[in-house]
Amino acid sequence: MKIARIRLKNSVETYGIVSEDGKKIITKEQIQEKTGVPIPPRIKEFLFGGWLSEVNSIGTELTYDLPVDEVDLLAPLPNPPKIICLAFNYYDHARDAGLTPSEEPVIFLKPRTALNSPHGNVIAPSFVKRLDYEAEIAVIIGRQVKKISEEDSLDAVFGYMIFHDVSARDIQFRDKQFTRGKSIDTFAPCGPWITTKDEIQDPQKLRITTKVNGELRQNSSSSNMVIPIRKIISSLSDLITIEPGDIISTGTPAGVAMSMKEPRYLKHDDIVEISIEGLGTIRNRILFN
Amino acid sequence: MKIARIRLKNSVETYGIVSEDGKKIITKEQIQEKTGVPIPPRIKEFLFGGWLSEVNSIGTELTYDLPVDEVDLLAPLPNPPKIICLAFNYYDHARDAGLTPSEEPVIFLKPRTALNSPHGNVIAPSFVKRLDYEAEIAVIIGRQVKKISEEDSLDAVFGYMIFHDVSARDIQFRDKQFTRGKSIDTFAPCGPWITTKDEIQDPQKLRITTKVNGELRQNSSSSNMVIPIRKIISSLSDLITIEPGDIISTGTPAGVAMSMKEPRYLKHDDIVEISIEGLGTIRNRILFN
Repeated sequence: MKIARIRLKNSVETYGIVSEDGKKIITKEQIQEKTGVPIPPRIKEFLFGGWLSEVNSIGTELTYDLPVDEVDLLAPLPNPPKIICLAFNYYDHARDAGLTPSEEPVIFLKPRTALNSPHGNVIAPSFVKRLDYEAEIAVIIGRQVKKISEEDSLDAVFGYMIFHDVSARDIQFRDKQFTRGKSIDTFAPCGPWITTKDEIQDPQKLRITTKVNGELRQNSSSSNMVIPIRKIISSLSDLITIEPGDIISTGTPAGVAMSMKEPRYLKHDDIVEISIEGLGTIRNRILFN
Repeated sequence: MKIARIRLKNSVETYGIVSEDGKKIITKEQIQEKTGVPIPPRIKEFLFGGWLSEVNSIGTELTYDLPVDEVDLLAPLPNPPKIICLAFNYYDHARDAGLTPSEEPVIFLKPRTALNSPHGNVIAPSFVKRLDYEAEIAVIIGRQVKKISEEDSLDAVFGYMIFHDVSARDIQFRDKQFTRGKSIDTFAPCGPWITTKDEIQDPQKLRITTKVNGELRQNSSSSNMVIPIRKIISSLSDLITIEPGDIISTGTPAGVAMSMKEPRYLKHDDIVEISIEGLGTIRNRILFN
């Protein structure tokens, strides 16, 4: 199942279930009307409060009436407890950067104020000269875990989505610490929706591509991940309580601008399009102001 | 005014106003009873919803009945939107570490799951061999700001509290990124309460001391801060929307274990006591498990 948070033409924000082909949506109000099930007002309760199985068990055939093109898709989770991002977690990316990847997850956090909608504009400060894209698979956590084993850790996963870890390399290189250059408002587009884990046969075999103005820049697979998802969750949970709604973004593969011999950083009006197998496509226009 | 979040002997969690000498407290239930003002259930609404002036304007004399010793003090804000921490923001600390401090705030974020009560036990994983203390002044933000000037930025401050940025140097040194070694559950004791800014004449002239088992380790003043609070808020707000309830911890002065010629890291059963002028004292027992 794919669940999207949306803004309707009349400006009302709601959420709904997206059809298998990603083209139509049924809103929570329509689901409630058709099934008689009282759907909760917030997407977080719907996702992590057992409502999906409730809706499924009703067995009512859902009909998707509303074209996705006629709504604005929003960041699926507006207020995640944490956004944890991994650094250098792809063999091909680490090799490009001349680094030996760590066996334990090296992380930074992004603030929720950086979240952006899947097709939102990225607004970079004009002094940033080295703006870079990073396509990532993000894990959405479904239940609270601490010290969970690798064997059991995927039980804590609710689903997946695309995460664009926009990075101001100027600030990142100057600070040494990654956080500030990646925490700017609008620097975390994500979506286009959350895809539940049952739809993804193997999260370690997903094709990931990034195009800038139509030109292929990143083209890799999650099979190149250094620390696989089950180990990321287990390892982090040794130290940190992982909570429902936490977003864990699993690092980016090769092909970012900073690793090019002559880096081609993002420019005003560039369009970055990220596609991940099974998760859809997000598309962001880059603006400097 | 000092506002504390507390757990009563009957396990009920509530909040209240602490007397000037820090020894007694009046709970929100008692305030409501005495003033007739309907006090909101959550501390966040009370702090940032204009209730303080509401209570003040009633003019009822508040009588503090409950000894602070008879309650458990909790982390004042259980769910801050962000916890932003500054690295190397004291001249004396940077000098000890052999670094030239940055003119812009170098930051990392701590997750809310690291929050700990002001007198809570810090529980470190047994493999951590280099556990360090860091005494810090934390700013509590009272209203949302973006691109605020240095001149106006202190208007966004609600108050201050003590923040203990517990740090596993093993992980920090290995990762290079500071986040993971500082994000472990219990690694952010804070409090003992929030002191409103009107009680602090000049936040850049506060004495900061840390004692480990009674021995003075840190003894400095916020006058040694590299980037003063008004500039921290202004500079961060150029990039990041700062929100009510955000905690901005302003860095630690000289005297941490890692800067000693023969570092004396924290051991099992050590007691770390941090005092900041006007803000009170917090005290944490260190345990390894």
